[in-house]
Amino acid sequence: MEDNVLALAGGVGGAKLVLGLARILPPEALVIAVNTGDDECFHGLHVSPDLDTVMYTLAGLANPETGWGLSGDTFIALSMLERYNVSTWFRLGDRDLATHIRRTQMLRQGCTLSQVTAELCHCLGVAQMVVPMSDDSVRTVVGTEAGELPMQQYFVQHHSEPKVVSIRYEGAATAQPAPGLLEGLARASTLVFCPSNPFLSLGPILAIPGVRERLQRFQGFRVAVSPIVGGMALRGPAAKIMAELGYEASSIAVARQYVGLCDTFWIDHQDAHLAPAIAQLGMKPMVGPIVMTSEADKVALARRILGLEDE
Amino acid sequence: MEDNVLALAGGVGGAKLVLGLARILPPEALVIAVNTGDDECFHGLHVSPDLDTVMYTLAGLANPETGWGLSGDTFIALSMLERYNVSTWFRLGDRDLATHIRRTQMLRQGCTLSQVTAELCHCLGVAQMVVPMSDDSVRTVVGTEAGELPMQQYFVQHHSEPKVVSIRYEGAATAQPAPGLLEGLARASTLVFCPSNPFLSLGPILAIPGVRERLQRFQGFRVAVSPIVGGMALRGPAAKIMAELGYEASSIAVARQYVGLCDTFWIDHQDAHLAPAIAQLGMKPMVGPIVMTSEADKVALARRILGLEDE
Repeated sequence: MEDNVLALAGGVGGAKLVLGLARILPPEALVIAVNTGDDECFHGLHVSPDLDTVMYTLAGLANPETGWGLSGDTFIALSMLERYNVSTWFRLGDRDLATHIRRTQMLRQGCTLSQVTAELCHCLGVAQMVVPMSDDSVRTVVGTEAGELPMQQYFVQHHSEPKVVSIRYEGAATAQPAPGLLEGLARASTLVFCPSNPFLSLGPILAIPGVRERLQRFQGFRVAVSPIVGGMALRGPAAKIMAELGYEASSIAVARQYVGLCDTFWIDHQDAHLAPAIAQLGMKPMVGPIVMTSEADKVALARRILGLEDE
Repeated sequence: MEDNVLALAGGVGGAKLVLGLARILPPEALVIAVNTGDDECFHGLHVSPDLDTVMYTLAGLANPETGWGLSGDTFIALSMLERYNVSTWFRLGDRDLATHIRRTQMLRQGCTLSQVTAELCHCLGVAQMVVPMSDDSVRTVVGTEAGELPMQQYFVQHHSEPKVVSIRYEGAATAQPAPGLLEGLARASTLVFCPSNPFLSLGPILAIPGVRERLQRFQGFRVAVSPIVGGMALRGPAAKIMAELGYEASSIAVARQYVGLCDTFWIDHQDAHLAPAIAQLGMKPMVGPIVMTSEADKVALARRILGLEDE
């Protein structure tokens, strides 16, 4: 197999498929470009939730129950931070804190987020190339009826409850794609849109000037997996937000976001009836089980979307 | 009792007497000015070992076994930092890390170290005024046969083993005394030199321009407690360093450091024979039990040096 894959990923859903891809591809054949629009500063520390979710997942350290954070992590430092009257709604575990401490230190020393991510991954034994979408600051800001909220405040502090009226990617207009994203794209024969929220996870990546155009010109195989099954997001607020923004909460609305960027679009069996509409968008609809629970599911889906398994 | 006390303190030895003073004085009558020459940056975080030892001691959180750090603290974040290939010879516990994270955040936000310390103490219920000696950076650098070492490297990483040839206080010449030190001094009727290392703990405080002169002019009661008993430091490398620097490892050599600054000098029973030599330095020698093991010892010594108990 000579496939070189560039996967575009957000958080937990993306990390699942990334793990499947990692299990079947040689490490050097997989580059994962990760959303950093959710990055946030907590207690003066630079936290990159999506990068960490992908990194911890590939390192075998991820918490299987939450999908984020580290398995078995403790919250002792956080309980002390609470005594200092700081807001601790973002639950940073002790081992997780070490990641943010080290990242922040390296960034302050002048390293780029790409360099930091490469170093952290190296130390945790992650052989695949995990890269931020950009080394520049891009912040996903969710406009709600209660005012604008940075992504983590919306998602974690407010439990995705306020009604969403808009989404913008602050800083995106002047951001550069990270070198690793461009390198991964140049090397890739396959481009994978992971089943991540098209607005909150992959939207920021696509908002970086030049990325959309490069994906449009990409000559290889381009495949997406829907994060929506039967009108419900597999995880997170994607369906709710899509409905609030006036989109249909269905795989069709996701597919529409990728018109011109993607050629093959995977939907679940229970959405098989949407296949003709997806075909009308100019994409080849593919139908199969796309819900990933076990690691076997993740590997099977990865094999399937790369065409390594007969349907 | 109308006594207002300013105590000059370093780390563990100083904190013991400070606890005794805190138990017998109204909180508003006690100001503790603390050495920050040991402050160090670990993993990008500003660590103030002596300030924290005093703060944790007064908050009832100190580790009674080590004298530093927090009782029952864990080292989970540190074990993860080790995976990131950073040097972890300075053992930062999880709860302790929270202090350094919060301090660093506030300093980066523009607060002075005095403001940060006041806030941390407030949050931990410390009612006494704990102030750094200065808001400016002063770094105690130990010149050894193996080269110059910052204090914590010398003390913790190298276990005080290299032979000391010199000590200097980097930055002291341009540092200002912290406002709280000056305020404490203006209010104080009693000045206490805690039993801390005269070169490594109280030396940096005395090296700040104006401090020595103000202490010389101080009109109240000035009392010191020797950190040396029978030629041995009660704790730490004081005796070893004094010998290496060419001083006698005895209370006499300590007393010499405080000539003109201090009028009453407490030594232990077993050093009673040194009393005449101390008197010759122009100080009133006082002899009694100065070794503090239990909290009762600390309170008794505090009462004794303030003249609240008949000998």
